[in-house]
Amino acid sequence: MNRKNPNKRNREIRLLPLNDMPMALPGDNLAELLLARFQETPPKDNDIIVIAQKIVSKAENRYVNLADIRPSDDAMQLAAETGKDPRLVELILSQSKRVVRRRRDVLIVEHELGFVHANAGIDHSNIPQNDNREMVLLLPEDANASAREIHAEIKNRLGIHLAVIINDSLGRAWRNGVTGIAIGAAGLPCLLNLCGEKDLYGNTLRATEVGIADEIAAAASLVMGQAAQGIPAVLVRGLEFSDRTGDASALIRAPDKDLFR
Amino acid sequence: MNRKNPNKRNREIRLLPLNDMPMALPGDNLAELLLARFQETPPKDNDIIVIAQKIVSKAENRYVNLADIRPSDDAMQLAAETGKDPRLVELILSQSKRVVRRRRDVLIVEHELGFVHANAGIDHSNIPQNDNREMVLLLPEDANASAREIHAEIKNRLGIHLAVIINDSLGRAWRNGVTGIAIGAAGLPCLLNLCGEKDLYGNTLRATEVGIADEIAAAASLVMGQAAQGIPAVLVRGLEFSDRTGDASALIRAPDKDLFR
Repeated sequence: MNRKNPNKRNREIRLLPLNDMPMALPGDNLAELLLARFQETPPKDNDIIVIAQKIVSKAENRYVNLADIRPSDDAMQLAAETGKDPRLVELILSQSKRVVRRRRDVLIVEHELGFVHANAGIDHSNIPQNDNREMVLLLPEDANASAREIHAEIKNRLGIHLAVIINDSLGRAWRNGVTGIAIGAAGLPCLLNLCGEKDLYGNTLRATEVGIADEIAAAASLVMGQAAQGIPAVLVRGLEFSDRTGDASALIRAPDKDLFR
Repeated sequence: MNRKNPNKRNREIRLLPLNDMPMALPGDNLAELLLARFQETPPKDNDIIVIAQKIVSKAENRYVNLADIRPSDDAMQLAAETGKDPRLVELILSQSKRVVRRRRDVLIVEHELGFVHANAGIDHSNIPQNDNREMVLLLPEDANASAREIHAEIKNRLGIHLAVIINDSLGRAWRNGVTGIAIGAAGLPCLLNLCGEKDLYGNTLRATEVGIADEIAAAASLVMGQAAQGIPAVLVRGLEFSDRTGDASALIRAPDKDLFR
């Protein structure tokens, strides 16, 4: 049997933290914040910048004070079932198409943007709190649009094609622990279709699609950290991609093709 | 509001391909194959080597020729429902605890090792085929044990702590495309528990566990490629972890805690 591997030699991929980003404030222009940090780590054409959902939501002022929310009867009922704050449940429902699973301490919904997500991605952590810990942060209103805007502004300012991914940490069916996934993207293919390509032995691959933007989002999460590390942006360098279009909606399985909803 | 980000500066993470690995053959000692390639890319203490499931299965001779399989009545029935080869269905069932979902062209099972996996991870691609395309490859018998063995042998030979992850590409609920996950590991924490740590604003994190080994597995997949690139091993450098024990079983959600099985 021939042991010789016919592969081309792949390149290293580098995951470069953008250190010392300032805390994002409502109204911030994220492209400007990134450009300021690029002096230390200049991006190259075809790099990918992965940006944490949290700073996008902060810049877009997606804060809500739970004290301002009046729960509906439905929310009260669901809050009793799940043991959650009725005002939080009201807010979760307002961001969602439907409830996928409910149980004590668990409320998994289909978010308006299509993600299946615990608590509609609404989070208490890593945001400035009032005394009652009532401040929460919603997902960006349209994460693909947010990514496109940053992508366009950097192209305009630096003249390079910098792909953009906005990532968030989501729980999974079947497996413990959250992992980074892409909730918005611009300038790269998020789903890679390998059907018809040849494998190592010249046989044709069938039915293989790779969620490449989710893999990039997960890789960047390793550099970002989750607690107080606070590295909200990571440059990914060395990944080759020829298609320069696409957004993260390609990663969302259509409900009628999903066996777990 | 204080814009100053209190973060420490995170380090770059590098994903280094081990190029020119030979094709793995039954009986190969994978640690030896890796050691030969380490001359070009020497590992350092606390690096992580991510190894593709496929070469582990090949070295462990997990090939099966479907011509040797006799389908049971149950397999024949399930093959008719799913449109799959009855011999393949028999083999899938032999590797599985139970069927999770069935549908035309889809057979998702709970593998004996605990993964919820289409076709029990049995694959036709990237293996040498006979004329009838009847050769398939099973998952390693115990991927954590395989990882431990490689980890111990490299420690023995080089005197360094090289964590080991064996990765595979799995489909997900709710999202299109496969992504890399860890099916076996040794020498690093696979699930990171952040409960009780402080966030950026000094508030305590609740209920956050990160599937870090799955994120590492996904990152390495970006370098490996899926079709004929054939980079079956990737060194991950720069990730800090203090706990040096653990295996991939921590990533498998217990069936009684899983709402999607």
